[in-house]
Amino acid sequence: MKLRIKNLPWLAGKPVVILHPKTAEKLNVFQNQRVLLSNSHDFYCIVDIFPNLVKKNEIGLSQEVTKIFSAKNEDDIDVSAAIISPASKLIKRKLEGHLLKKEEMETIIKEIVNNNLTEAEIAYFIAAQKTQKMTLKEIISLTEAMIQTGEKMVFQNKEVVDKHCIGGVAGNRTTPIVVAICASLGLTFPKTSSRAITSASGTADVIETISKVDIKVKDLKRIVEKTNGCMAWGGSLKLAPSDDKIIQIERLINLDVESQLIASILSKKITAGAKYVLIDIPYGKNSKVKSWYSAKKLGKRFKKIAKYFNLKLNVVYTNGKLPIGNGFGPVLEMNDVLKVLQNKKDAPKDLRKKSLYLSSELIKLAGKRNSKNIVKQALDSGIAYEKFKQIINAQNNKDNFEKKIKALKTARFRVTIKSNKRGKIINIKNNKINEICRILGTPENLGAGIYLYKSIGKVKKDEKLLTMFSDNKRKLERAIKFFNEENVIEIKFKRK
Amino acid sequence: MKLRIKNLPWLAGKPVVILHPKTAEKLNVFQNQRVLLSNSHDFYCIVDIFPNLVKKNEIGLSQEVTKIFSAKNEDDIDVSAAIISPASKLIKRKLEGHLLKKEEMETIIKEIVNNNLTEAEIAYFIAAQKTQKMTLKEIISLTEAMIQTGEKMVFQNKEVVDKHCIGGVAGNRTTPIVVAICASLGLTFPKTSSRAITSASGTADVIETISKVDIKVKDLKRIVEKTNGCMAWGGSLKLAPSDDKIIQIERLINLDVESQLIASILSKKITAGAKYVLIDIPYGKNSKVKSWYSAKKLGKRFKKIAKYFNLKLNVVYTNGKLPIGNGFGPVLEMNDVLKVLQNKKDAPKDLRKKSLYLSSELIKLAGKRNSKNIVKQALDSGIAYEKFKQIINAQNNKDNFEKKIKALKTARFRVTIKSNKRGKIINIKNNKINEICRILGTPENLGAGIYLYKSIGKVKKDEKLLTMFSDNKRKLERAIKFFNEENVIEIKFKRK
Repeated sequence: MKLRIKNLPWLAGKPVVILHPKTAEKLNVFQNQRVLLSNSHDFYCIVDIFPNLVKKNEIGLSQEVTKIFSAKNEDDIDVSAAIISPASKLIKRKLEGHLLKKEEMETIIKEIVNNNLTEAEIAYFIAAQKTQKMTLKEIISLTEAMIQTGEKMVFQNKEVVDKHCIGGVAGNRTTPIVVAICASLGLTFPKTSSRAITSASGTADVIETISKVDIKVKDLKRIVEKTNGCMAWGGSLKLAPSDDKIIQIERLINLDVESQLIASILSKKITAGAKYVLIDIPYGKNSKVKSWYSAKKLGKRFKKIAKYFNLKLNVVYTNGKLPIGNGFGPVLEMNDVLKVLQNKKDAPKDLRKKSLYLSSELIKLAGKRNSKNIVKQALDSGIAYEKFKQIINAQNNKDNFEKKIKALKTARFRVTIKSNKRGKIINIKNNKINEICRILGTPENLGAGIYLYKSIGKVKKDEKLLTMFSDNKRKLERAIKFFNEENVIEIKFKRK
Repeated sequence: MKLRIKNLPWLAGKPVVILHPKTAEKLNVFQNQRVLLSNSHDFYCIVDIFPNLVKKNEIGLSQEVTKIFSAKNEDDIDVSAAIISPASKLIKRKLEGHLLKKEEMETIIKEIVNNNLTEAEIAYFIAAQKTQKMTLKEIISLTEAMIQTGEKMVFQNKEVVDKHCIGGVAGNRTTPIVVAICASLGLTFPKTSSRAITSASGTADVIETISKVDIKVKDLKRIVEKTNGCMAWGGSLKLAPSDDKIIQIERLINLDVESQLIASILSKKITAGAKYVLIDIPYGKNSKVKSWYSAKKLGKRFKKIAKYFNLKLNVVYTNGKLPIGNGFGPVLEMNDVLKVLQNKKDAPKDLRKKSLYLSSELIKLAGKRNSKNIVKQALDSGIAYEKFKQIINAQNNKDNFEKKIKALKTARFRVTIKSNKRGKIINIKNNKINEICRILGTPENLGAGIYLYKSIGKVKKDEKLLTMFSDNKRKLERAIKFFNEENVIEIKFKRK
């Protein structure tokens, strides 16, 4: 069908054309499907449908299309419903159970990065990985394709280390502590983290309570060169741009795909310049990884693939049955982190212990001896805390650390739940703790969340179990209802 | 996060809210994800992101949201990134291999119909069906849910028949002929068809060359009551609205999902009021169903599920190895149909034979005896052709049949390909014939397509193989290139 080009002053973020509803009907294309534009060459675009922007005989071009297609305003152009794109064909093949070759994986990842695949097509790709599984070879190809399309950071002549936790444990905010300890010991630690996907808060959300986290690559380099470390949000860095898009789509139905997880983590560590990487896989009933067996299997895959990329990688398998720390939610977790770094008496012991363990494993991996003592000393002496301050001030580009931590505030409304009998706490449901926090308004509501007083063990009648915080009373009510219905803290009551 | 409501005069087709990019970043939500609006009650909406329509502290509501949520302009409202919707949770479960119960299937289908699932979520649902398969019980639940959400047609005291071909055979335009024959024999045949998905043309595209096909339910009833039959496009009838959406998403990567196919076909036949249904399953190497074994398996499922719904259904397994008819493309296929109905000498024999066979099976199913002779007589005597005219005129609401068929025109440019040696045609690739037609511009370009002169068997040097038609010379060139590269007509050459 011939249509008249209308160049629109519109930056859509992807190659989009706008059709009049009647024209779309004639072409038999729907929103988000593709059309093929042909003049001296061919170009595939995604379709958007609007009644007012274009007439029936017109096609509106976003600036991305105008630029690539070098299309002149008011030129006539041949438009047809598109045969599916090369990447889509490959995704279909994978969904049908075929293996993908290296160059095929590249085709898919490139089209994702160029925003040339619709969200539904990316969902098919994710579902294919989930259900048809990927071979080691395929995951390596995927990782390579993601590295190729990412921006690289180089820290020359530096011992760059990194860590990653698979997640699934509420709280567990070890990263700021581990970065501070390792950076204080001379290792280079350009840590980038994500925001929360389904948990109460991500490391980036927690750091954001006192610091800027959306940092440009060149500023990041400056910060790391000055302080040895950083704790930035990875989202805007484009270390693995296809991954950001894929995570968005996974998140829609809260899906975790192992192959994508491995490729995502390793490609980001590699483009961030890491040589030594520690992977923490918590396992347990209420965690993301359910059993020791699955944890081991996942760990092995990480090691094998890291070997291919000459990355020194170690895996630790940690207890993922229970939440770690007392606070859950951005501000509440930052409070825990500060208490550990400040060696406060009421600092959560489990968080301190795990942070020391991870730091020790990481510096051991980087070749240092006597690692346990060294990391303990770094924390106990306060040099880790000094390093933490230094990094935060560098990220804020202002010496405002003290002011920032003074301003930390939990949410306005709170409710404390107590045990109604004497007994024994036999389980605290990790995943439900996160769900309650989301109901309370985390991570957007920085001060919302939970403070947990107890862990496994005895509990007296009327002893405090937890306090919930929210800026919205309705949300508090909903959270309490959820807490009771889901039996989040399982207590075995003693008979008199 | 509190935002100020801005009611927009915008009918989005689904419950959409518009956020400023900065606000979306703060909420950590992306395009097409969902937010939860809460005041006195809760409501999930899909997010669209625009810089100019709303300010940072505002949320724009499409008319759908304003209506359901009864939200007042300039009210403050609490907005948070949404925990995933009930249907999404179920889709995830299916993707992980769990079975879905009846009411769970209903939840998913209802949310699709209400446009409350994003395209990516629907893609996950389709992929889950594809890779995790569905049990008979699940397909029945799916079919029931689709029937519940569809509009029903009732033809009281009528013997309503219907047919459906699984597809995969190029040409094969039997439907108009079968409808004409059966309707001329007194059966009620309210046939609705789809447009082409990946083939050269769908029945609706072919009929559209001479008739209106986008017909409202009440007009359709009038036409069927007058003529016993119709040949309409099913798209706008909303007989199975979830299905229209699902097919759009399948089409993105050209996917066929068996469970969805069965539920789709049967739910539409049931809502269209059919009592007797004939399913044609062509099988063969280049067809959609590859083997007799898979064809049989599919056929059995159809029968079992039809039994549950008290539908009299028969399945015929036909040869799907080769294209049927000479013409491929809307106009070229209509020419074939007309030749068969007019009993022309050069009418394609295979198309005539198959149409007679299907008609005979269908009227046998509806309880008539001596079916073979009856249908042959209906065709040979011309009463089927008269019925066809009558139906087309009724659909056009005007006696313009002769005028319409006189106006049928193939596309402007053509190229004929001849055999370059003496030999034997051993294969004609069904699927590639369709792909060539799409390259040539079908189905939008009604006159584009292929005219095939030969079938399996001997061929002389310089004998015509086929003619390609297109309104675009570049497309012709591309089609010829594709024809040669893909070896679409396999010829075994004889040595001298």
